[in-house]
Amino acid sequence: MSVAVQKIERGNARDRLVRTGVELCTQASFQAMGIEQVLRQAGVPKGSFYHYFRSKREFGLAVIDAYAEYFCTKLQRVLEDTEVPPLDRLRAFVNEAERGMARHQFQRGCLVGNLGQEMAGLDDEFRERLENVLKLWEAQTSRCLKEAQDAGELNATLDADRLAEFFWIGWEGAILRSKLTRSSRPMHVFADTFLAHLAA
Amino acid sequence: MSVAVQKIERGNARDRLVRTGVELCTQASFQAMGIEQVLRQAGVPKGSFYHYFRSKREFGLAVIDAYAEYFCTKLQRVLEDTEVPPLDRLRAFVNEAERGMARHQFQRGCLVGNLGQEMAGLDDEFRERLENVLKLWEAQTSRCLKEAQDAGELNATLDADRLAEFFWIGWEGAILRSKLTRSSRPMHVFADTFLAHLAA
Repeated sequence: MSVAVQKIERGNARDRLVRTGVELCTQASFQAMGIEQVLRQAGVPKGSFYHYFRSKREFGLAVIDAYAEYFCTKLQRVLEDTEVPPLDRLRAFVNEAERGMARHQFQRGCLVGNLGQEMAGLDDEFRERLENVLKLWEAQTSRCLKEAQDAGELNATLDADRLAEFFWIGWEGAILRSKLTRSSRPMHVFADTFLAHLAA
Repeated sequence: MSVAVQKIERGNARDRLVRTGVELCTQASFQAMGIEQVLRQAGVPKGSFYHYFRSKREFGLAVIDAYAEYFCTKLQRVLEDTEVPPLDRLRAFVNEAERGMARHQFQRGCLVGNLGQEMAGLDDEFRERLENVLKLWEAQTSRCLKEAQDAGELNATLDADRLAEFFWIGWEGAILRSKLTRSSRPMHVFADTFLAHLAA
């Protein structure tokens, strides 16, 4: 379990609210999510929400930050594991994601993808926050692809930054489609084709 | 303008409601969409909604069908245009999509992608309907890729069905990301990398 999740689970009422927000926003719309639902599911007394957050908007930004922290730690653990050859680390990330989606019956997707889909209704600070998270993930993935190039696993003439950007553009589509089909096939087809054709 | 859109624009109150539903669902959540909003925007008198549809659910299915018909006609026009070399047809589809997104300030995405993202809250008939639409688009794209193979534009040993599946998994991610960044870059990066690495 990642440090971020441990920290959240052991946390106080504020942390429980944020963790519940993360859970709900991986499943459904942020805009449709009610504060009452968050309080009830977090087991936090009514009225204390505005003790911790000035608004639902401020809560939403805290939810994005918590998910980003959790996910960056997870990516770091998998993609920087020098015991494993670089491209196998990317495969390990994909396999872990497939297992995670299956464990939640393909009902939970990526919080950043979910909120990204709602953007017409959210403001610029949300959009920029989400885009920055995706850019961090792309940078982590690009470093792994560059290590693959150094290790001779990946054609050194390819643009690792662009491949990483391509991966994350498509991967969010794969998560979306896996939720729709309730199967890991889209994730598998996307990652497998990516690795077979681009990175082989 | 496609036949499907002409038909919808010239239509009666039912068609106006469906067209408004299509517009709203390319921008935001189906679940958050209110019937009153649809009626107001369509200029249809209150109370007539249930004359045409038994429920919001039945309306939603009609909206998916209308979008699917419109989009299939569009794909047919572009991907079956024998005046143009096959891979250039796919490029033309991508360019048209980029222009369409820009025209609506990147606020409107793909209705199928949007509704797919909400699936945790929708029932199996919705999921299957959306998945079938995506499978139709994949089949249309696969036929185009096979023609590219016949024309010697694409390596004949590649699996066209799987490449088409890969394209649509990732393309929905590109639409999502373009909405988030309000730029056509993700669509461009995805399609360009796909064509350069997979289809070259």
